[in-house]
Amino acid sequence: MAGDGKAHIVVLGAGFGGLTFCKKFRHPDARVTIVDRTNHHLFQPLLYQVATAGLSAPEIAQPIRSILRDAPNLSVLLDEVADFDLPTRRVLLKQNALSYDYLVLALGGVTSYFGHPEWEEFAPGLKSLEDALRMRRDLLLAFERAETEPDPKACDALMTIVIVGGGPTGVELAGACAELARYVLRRDFDHIDPAKARVILIEGSPVVLSHMPPDLSESARRQLERLGVQVRTSCRVKSIERAAVHLESGETIHAANILWAAGVSASPLTRKLGVELDRAGRVKVHPDLSLPGYPNVFAIGDMALVLQDDGKPVPGVSPAAMQMATHVAHIIEDDLSMGPGAAPRSVFKYWDKGTMATIGRSAAVAYSGPIKMHGFIAWLAWLFVHLVFLIGFRNRLAVFMQWVYSYFTYKRGARIITNWPPKETPGTQAPNTTDMSKLREEAAPRVPFSG
Amino acid sequence: MAGDGKAHIVVLGAGFGGLTFCKKFRHPDARVTIVDRTNHHLFQPLLYQVATAGLSAPEIAQPIRSILRDAPNLSVLLDEVADFDLPTRRVLLKQNALSYDYLVLALGGVTSYFGHPEWEEFAPGLKSLEDALRMRRDLLLAFERAETEPDPKACDALMTIVIVGGGPTGVELAGACAELARYVLRRDFDHIDPAKARVILIEGSPVVLSHMPPDLSESARRQLERLGVQVRTSCRVKSIERAAVHLESGETIHAANILWAAGVSASPLTRKLGVELDRAGRVKVHPDLSLPGYPNVFAIGDMALVLQDDGKPVPGVSPAAMQMATHVAHIIEDDLSMGPGAAPRSVFKYWDKGTMATIGRSAAVAYSGPIKMHGFIAWLAWLFVHLVFLIGFRNRLAVFMQWVYSYFTYKRGARIITNWPPKETPGTQAPNTTDMSKLREEAAPRVPFSG
Repeated sequence: MAGDGKAHIVVLGAGFGGLTFCKKFRHPDARVTIVDRTNHHLFQPLLYQVATAGLSAPEIAQPIRSILRDAPNLSVLLDEVADFDLPTRRVLLKQNALSYDYLVLALGGVTSYFGHPEWEEFAPGLKSLEDALRMRRDLLLAFERAETEPDPKACDALMTIVIVGGGPTGVELAGACAELARYVLRRDFDHIDPAKARVILIEGSPVVLSHMPPDLSESARRQLERLGVQVRTSCRVKSIERAAVHLESGETIHAANILWAAGVSASPLTRKLGVELDRAGRVKVHPDLSLPGYPNVFAIGDMALVLQDDGKPVPGVSPAAMQMATHVAHIIEDDLSMGPGAAPRSVFKYWDKGTMATIGRSAAVAYSGPIKMHGFIAWLAWLFVHLVFLIGFRNRLAVFMQWVYSYFTYKRGARIITNWPPKETPGTQAPNTTDMSKLREEAAPRVPFSG
Repeated sequence: MAGDGKAHIVVLGAGFGGLTFCKKFRHPDARVTIVDRTNHHLFQPLLYQVATAGLSAPEIAQPIRSILRDAPNLSVLLDEVADFDLPTRRVLLKQNALSYDYLVLALGGVTSYFGHPEWEEFAPGLKSLEDALRMRRDLLLAFERAETEPDPKACDALMTIVIVGGGPTGVELAGACAELARYVLRRDFDHIDPAKARVILIEGSPVVLSHMPPDLSESARRQLERLGVQVRTSCRVKSIERAAVHLESGETIHAANILWAAGVSASPLTRKLGVELDRAGRVKVHPDLSLPGYPNVFAIGDMALVLQDDGKPVPGVSPAAMQMATHVAHIIEDDLSMGPGAAPRSVFKYWDKGTMATIGRSAAVAYSGPIKMHGFIAWLAWLFVHLVFLIGFRNRLAVFMQWVYSYFTYKRGARIITNWPPKETPGTQAPNTTDMSKLREEAAPRVPFSG
């Protein structure tokens, strides 16, 4: 107990799990500290829209302090987790140290390269706002470069986007990239036709969106192909280097932009907990979501491995993280009211409300229980659900207006390149420049635009 | 003449000058290439709103290709100027080379430190979106750090913002910083009271906004002080180091954020032209805005020194750049229609439509000819003028909604910190971290938040 006699609950991470815990948990004898390494909650389901210039960064991010402004007995701390000392009930942060009575781990996941961390440099993933802004810059820069690239092969590579991974993120990225090229950029260039850009979605398994019913997977594939996306299923990546994907079939695809949407693993901080993890780094929690040996420490969301009755793990989606947060909030409230161990703790049950993925303007797939939707109706459902859950009134309104505007005009408001050109001054980002010279066949490139 | 028999006009820079030229210039026997190092036109008058979390970056930036999509015979090129060869009528870019028949230089200005380039690291200026996003991050981070800073002196420094320079940018930044601290952040922290932040505006001359009539300068000062800004006029900076401003009076102000709004000089590229420049690096152009010795090369906007009848230079403001652009467009049109030298070229005359500066919510000063305004009326006029001139419908609507929302709620939508925390991966921005340890007096800092 803290000096003021109140139990101290420390929550690590302000994603969907951590934030939901802070909103649901209420107890007069407790105070809560929530720690995040950024100052904002990120609405991750729309991150691909920032990466493809549909939305601006502040439209999908909201300051954590603003969201939790009215929560009583709650502190927000901008800091990063460095290490844990579970036996003495302490968390070491980069700037501070915290003692806790209860600890809620909600640190989320990171992009995983299945043992090939060297691919990250050439095939960036999409987990943070910085990832999205960098992706936006690199996608837009490739078209600008293609406009003045004299060599046809290098130009083709600049206008090729490969997305690795056919899950929801990969499908959404592929659809949004195809729309960006075919509709948004189409009329803006003189020397190239952006509508001829190739968008290639690579998936190792036989279907995209393999977590969905087979007819919806098939529908998603058809909707992607209608947008011009080449969908390659049962297609495996052998290796990735700068601007080139080598497939197991022996084929090589040259592409200035290779986007990685193939895997997520738990935050690497789970390795510092000293408890058993699965291959994806997730904590094998008890059925009440507490850590083995530490009934006052809980893991929720993407970093927790929770098995359902059918033996499958609860999926790493935001509704699951939010349900886990609510479950843990009730357990700690009961502990504080009745004393620890007074009653057996309840077992977490995941309620699958359904799932959806958008493919483009008027194109999506969705199901909820027995209801399956695809095409325009699914897209409307997707819009509605995402607007309702987008945190913060202003963001909701701004995002809605953006969507209406984009829908009717095919323009994208956030189509700007930042952190470019690179400056030599300290504090400036050095972008990942792609050298196309290897691909050029002509000895001397012609000088375009000369009068 | 180019191969197609059309005269080639090259425009360097897509600020207010370059863009206005492209919109006004029309001739069937000419084609235009506009070059910019970014892909967007930046609405610089609102850059301070991005720096203080009022607006998001895409709201004040619009892709150049979108703006000029419908202009005939026009190409947009993303590239950077490397050098000029005026005698052979060529411009060398980083990636390309251009031959021209007419050249319009509209490269704008850069922040100037009056011979102290070493101050840039400690007192960043505000000319690009990257500058604004970095400033926003550093301003917001300082409050986050103050929240956990145990030493009172270091905490005071974290909550002090010094703005050097009392021109329009300095006044607007000072007002916006004071509002950010006093109204926006006020209720969001537990350990500090952001309303107690100090915002200090330092100006060397006896008044702020010295280009305005004396009663409006005085009104601006009063309105700033009402917002809590300390206005120090006739106050000169001796030197600047990390987190400290040394004044000529001998006083030192410790501040985590020192913002430089004291000077602008012409783009350093003017030095490569081989023509006479003034002390601020501006090109001394002929009365028709052409370069001495090069009747087919023109300089407009912040990089041109044009003297008015009273001997004072035309100010470096966007209306002047736009008027110069229109003037040059007409001269080149006449040249092409009638042949060079057929008629004497007209002399550029600047028409001062008035000027305005905003200080905060409902606070501003403005004059136009004999009309002077201050307070709420001036603020409404400022809102109206800025919305009308903001390029692009979507941005106009989005910015208007942001303002309405901020006005009634005192929330700021863009209050997010990006590029934080610093990553070790390539391509990530290393932020300017301010070490407050020098200011700490206690031997061992207490650990805050420990339970």
